[in-house]
Amino acid sequence: MIYPSSLSNLINYFRKLPGIGEKSAERLALSVLSMSSDDVNGFSASMIDSRENLHQCSICGHITDKEICDICSDSNRNKNVICVLEDYKSVFAFEKAGNYDGVYHVLNGLISPIDDVNPEDINISSLMKRVEELDNPEVIIALKSTVEGETTTLYLQKLLENKKVSISRLSYGIPMGAEIDFLDEITLERALSDRKKITE
Amino acid sequence: MIYPSSLSNLINYFRKLPGIGEKSAERLALSVLSMSSDDVNGFSASMIDSRENLHQCSICGHITDKEICDICSDSNRNKNVICVLEDYKSVFAFEKAGNYDGVYHVLNGLISPIDDVNPEDINISSLMKRVEELDNPEVIIALKSTVEGETTTLYLQKLLENKKVSISRLSYGIPMGAEIDFLDEITLERALSDRKKITE
Repeated sequence: MIYPSSLSNLINYFRKLPGIGEKSAERLALSVLSMSSDDVNGFSASMIDSRENLHQCSICGHITDKEICDICSDSNRNKNVICVLEDYKSVFAFEKAGNYDGVYHVLNGLISPIDDVNPEDINISSLMKRVEELDNPEVIIALKSTVEGETTTLYLQKLLENKKVSISRLSYGIPMGAEIDFLDEITLERALSDRKKITE
Repeated sequence: MIYPSSLSNLINYFRKLPGIGEKSAERLALSVLSMSSDDVNGFSASMIDSRENLHQCSICGHITDKEICDICSDSNRNKNVICVLEDYKSVFAFEKAGNYDGVYHVLNGLISPIDDVNPEDINISSLMKRVEELDNPEVIIALKSTVEGETTTLYLQKLLENKKVSISRLSYGIPMGAEIDFLDEITLERALSDRKKITE
């Protein structure tokens, strides 16, 4: 036992965080010792507060500390455009990009038969209900291009096909700033087949 | 406001930790949301526990949750050899190396006139008292080779000179595994002047 037990406890908790190895956990735990008492109390309370008070928005499934999230209750946002995302982290990414003024629907998962995740395990039925209540909405499916993402996209497409909905998906292609010769073949193939005319 | 307020609070606290930038703070805060309630409660309590219950050992100045630290109260350790260190982090480094069986004295700082840290601001008088109570002890000064480290080493050397103490310092030289041509000049100079005979 190199560390006093309370410190070694704290180090172990830091190690549970993603991407934090032994050295970092030690550095972080030691830094807590030199924080002000107020900061440590606040940090500690904020941890419990976040864990206990954040839950899914009853409309879109995004995390919120209210009944309905800030995005769904924002009157400036276009409720007729719904962007379907895998998780709340993707919502934060979209919000940071900052130029989307529609609303979201967070599936909180992707269909994955291998992991025994079926359509009824993720927020699909609530999406259908939302769509049915709207007048000719646009649904933008923004899921990643893995087997699970494509499966879920296809499933949603089938479900929505017969309704009065315009469906789109994000474009695939070259990420900004990427070197063409470093791209994987599938991305290049997609970028080629999704090519856009620049002159008529 | 992209994040619910309790989450953005938690992100801000994570940003106070050393080496944690915006992206990492966000990732860590989000990971807390998916930890078990028990883990979050434990983590939070352990943070306060460490901050409140750890203090300096009344003998050597190392951090401990007891009155006297585990090292000072270990009867297997040679109390007549005292290794003088800048801070408790250095104690952990020595303990990990694992082959030192003496005890420590943690100065909790280095003399630094620029930062207005004088000899009486660090644990020097308690070191002198310890030394005086021992019978011909060995004091190993293990401070870093910066201006502050060297100043403190010299100051301790002066204080100890007239007492019945054998004083040593760590050797300077090439770190294990380092390429000679990448070493700075001062380290090389020190390694040369501190060279050891390998044949008589």
